[in-house]
Amino acid sequence: MKTISNPPYLQVALDCVTSKEAMRLTLELPENENLLIEAGTPLIKAEGISIIQSIRDKKKDVYIIADLKTLDVGALEVNLAKKSTANAATVSGLASNSTIDSFVEACIAQEIDSIVDMMNCDEPVKILSSLKELPTIALLHRGIDMESDTEHAWNKVVHIKESFPDIKVAVAGGLLIDNVEPALEAGADIFIVGRAITASENVKKAATDFLEALRR
Amino acid sequence: MKTISNPPYLQVALDCVTSKEAMRLTLELPENENLLIEAGTPLIKAEGISIIQSIRDKKKDVYIIADLKTLDVGALEVNLAKKSTANAATVSGLASNSTIDSFVEACIAQEIDSIVDMMNCDEPVKILSSLKELPTIALLHRGIDMESDTEHAWNKVVHIKESFPDIKVAVAGGLLIDNVEPALEAGADIFIVGRAITASENVKKAATDFLEALRR
Repeated sequence: MKTISNPPYLQVALDCVTSKEAMRLTLELPENENLLIEAGTPLIKAEGISIIQSIRDKKKDVYIIADLKTLDVGALEVNLAKKSTANAATVSGLASNSTIDSFVEACIAQEIDSIVDMMNCDEPVKILSSLKELPTIALLHRGIDMESDTEHAWNKVVHIKESFPDIKVAVAGGLLIDNVEPALEAGADIFIVGRAITASENVKKAATDFLEALRR
Repeated sequence: MKTISNPPYLQVALDCVTSKEAMRLTLELPENENLLIEAGTPLIKAEGISIIQSIRDKKKDVYIIADLKTLDVGALEVNLAKKSTANAATVSGLASNSTIDSFVEACIAQEIDSIVDMMNCDEPVKILSSLKELPTIALLHRGIDMESDTEHAWNKVVHIKESFPDIKVAVAGGLLIDNVEPALEAGADIFIVGRAITASENVKKAATDFLEALRR
């Protein structure tokens, strides 16, 4: 079982909606132990969960995240992700506690990593505190409202790390090479980047530059 | 454009995860103007949005709901639903206002019905009040917590109808033929049923019995 044991990582979100584009991006991304590939929610809804297996067929050893953003029937959706060879799957932090609990428990049973996506959640620490089992990863979005107030956003990383030292923290939202520094300093483990890489003319170079920025 | 103009309706949720099972259920359901077919969220994630077109190929004139439970990139997901010939699509009431607004606006532009799914939302009326444009349908779930307190649950139908007379209200959660009466009296327009029909030995009869109970 692949694990998140050597942060920081770059997670490239395949934010397209066709298998063809997803395959192009997958093949253009560089081979790197610290590069994770995410099948975005619209991509999964458009093409079905088998898109994960298609990515796997192109990159046997890569760590793949199924961005399911599950809101209901947690265990059922984890089973879909596992069958498709995903290494991790996301549940929405907005789901009921019973859904998040069943999702995390199913991930533990199926030996894949669980990610609670805190998009639109006001109090991530409170949500994590209320769960039966902690997820592997908590995902924080720097919302549009916060884009002029990054300090506030990255403080949330510090709060989660202080409260739950074993949880890995992923960050998403408008990340550029020039602004990874404060998130790195706050202790973020995984940096999720979409368009800044996928819409780049040179996908491989854009990803490589990001990976280097994270290792600086 | 098909519309919800002659309630009450029965919405059968295809709560399976394979195309094969979805096709079996689709073919077994009776032909009836007041029967709507929902492609459930796990089914869409499992098989991709093209499952809607597959249902359409079997039942040319049926009203089909894409249960996307969208949390982000509202307009993008509406486009997927429209392309696949869906008549309506759902957005989660837990999404940000900007996501719900972009979803509803895209539905209006694409001429399909919009449904705000209030699962896990404490204050549906407040959410509806805060939107730029009202959705076609508000979907209320009778949560597990409420199953011994149905009066409370159906009061929410009355509250929405009083506040927004033009909105249609759909109800879901443990609906059985024997307990549709109070929801009908509260003014519910659409009754969503999953396992009570899809897990029945005689799908056609189970659906027909429900349709008759709604017309009683």
